[in-house]
Amino acid sequence: MHLATVTHAGGTSAAVLDGSSWRALPAADLSALLDSGAEPVPGEVLAGAVPVLPLPAPRKVICCGLNYADHILETGRELPAHPTLFTKYADTLAGPEADLLLPAGLQVDWEAELAVVVGATLRRADREAALKGIAGYTVANDISVRDWQYRTLEWFQGKAWDGSTPVGPVVVTPDELDPAEGVEVICRVNGEQVQRGNTRTLVFDPADLLAYISTFTVLRPGDLVLTGTPGGIGAARRPPRYLADGDVVETEITGLGTLRNTVRFVN
Amino acid sequence: MHLATVTHAGGTSAAVLDGSSWRALPAADLSALLDSGAEPVPGEVLAGAVPVLPLPAPRKVICCGLNYADHILETGRELPAHPTLFTKYADTLAGPEADLLLPAGLQVDWEAELAVVVGATLRRADREAALKGIAGYTVANDISVRDWQYRTLEWFQGKAWDGSTPVGPVVVTPDELDPAEGVEVICRVNGEQVQRGNTRTLVFDPADLLAYISTFTVLRPGDLVLTGTPGGIGAARRPPRYLADGDVVETEITGLGTLRNTVRFVN
Repeated sequence: MHLATVTHAGGTSAAVLDGSSWRALPAADLSALLDSGAEPVPGEVLAGAVPVLPLPAPRKVICCGLNYADHILETGRELPAHPTLFTKYADTLAGPEADLLLPAGLQVDWEAELAVVVGATLRRADREAALKGIAGYTVANDISVRDWQYRTLEWFQGKAWDGSTPVGPVVVTPDELDPAEGVEVICRVNGEQVQRGNTRTLVFDPADLLAYISTFTVLRPGDLVLTGTPGGIGAARRPPRYLADGDVVETEITGLGTLRNTVRFVN
Repeated sequence: MHLATVTHAGGTSAAVLDGSSWRALPAADLSALLDSGAEPVPGEVLAGAVPVLPLPAPRKVICCGLNYADHILETGRELPAHPTLFTKYADTLAGPEADLLLPAGLQVDWEAELAVVVGATLRRADREAALKGIAGYTVANDISVRDWQYRTLEWFQGKAWDGSTPVGPVVVTPDELDPAEGVEVICRVNGEQVQRGNTRTLVFDPADLLAYISTFTVLRPGDLVLTGTPGGIGAARRPPRYLADGDVVETEITGLGTLRNTVRFVN
């Protein structure tokens, strides 16, 4: 299934794709649908529906850094024994076509990522339980404010700017997409490809990450886990390259779709 | 005012201290009261009421590290230009007398801290607005799982173990307590004093922290900001000292009260 939260009647509705039409599911969005535990039984066709941020209200948004083996090895580092984890908020997220509104003067960088949507309550889950607890996959861009990220040892303050992390456009269920088989994770800036990696080279795969996190904190339906970014970020270039006002960032994962967001500097 | 969430009729109630009695406030807990924006008009006396976790549902729990000048300077470091920030969850919190249930074999350490309760919606607030947006102060212990904290560069995975961070017992409003005038922050383990600092030596005071955080993410009524710990943590001892099963941790701040929690290793 391809699931989404779509525009409908001045608000939103959870929806499932049926051919080229979106059909209503019984909740205002996918966060509420997953929270309710309701079966995704398709209802009426929603004419003119457009996907928006699929999960507007995750309780936890946890991100993994340094997770693509090819990128880590090319930088001369050893593969990590444990995932590096940090957090964002529901407030950090933005829709698949949303403008990313940020103050002028920040060093804003891209990080195309596969995101995992949790579909069950996971507490000290093993890999098998974690795999069964995946509701689906979606596309995210872990937009990072590098100057704030590196002000201190802890990255959080560069990673949690409100409305900076686009997610969507759809959530694809695991029966239709298996990241272990390899999907391409691509980022383009103003049409130029700047990142291209493959989820086959993830050090910690989605089930690893969910099991590991669930050792210390419970995960619940609708929570999001971002799996890290492949090589090609702007901060690693010589000289570094950051996003400018008006830059268009496209984030694409094969089988999942494309985010298209414009950076807008505001005061 | 001394505010709390107290036991009442098999559930809980928000409450305000009147002499030696707790009087009901119109919400099930202080999170709901602050969320509703209702005036804290005292109702009936709640006989036998006992304070529990005052804020069971903060949307954001943000912590500052390396914030006591005397401790930083004694370690030979320079004072930081920016606060080091990381996060916990509502799930991380525990009541003022709760047992702290953690798996055996972890390196569990204490960090007595002043916590700030947000009372207004703060977005890019200046110091003055941030100061006005403080609902009150409470006691917290940022219990830290050191082996997980230092597995990677990011501390989060050692800081967010469910049910590990006691908070309470009361929230005291700013008209009754001003951390700038200096309150003592004390930790005892099995009756032995292991930490004693004073909030006069905070590098970033509560208003600084709220204003800084609100630059990148909105703060809302009921959110919690932990202000960092003074010297004396177990990991800094030679040899290091960690908490053992059955150890009793008391966390006291003058004018705010005392948390008393027992560490229990479980499997």
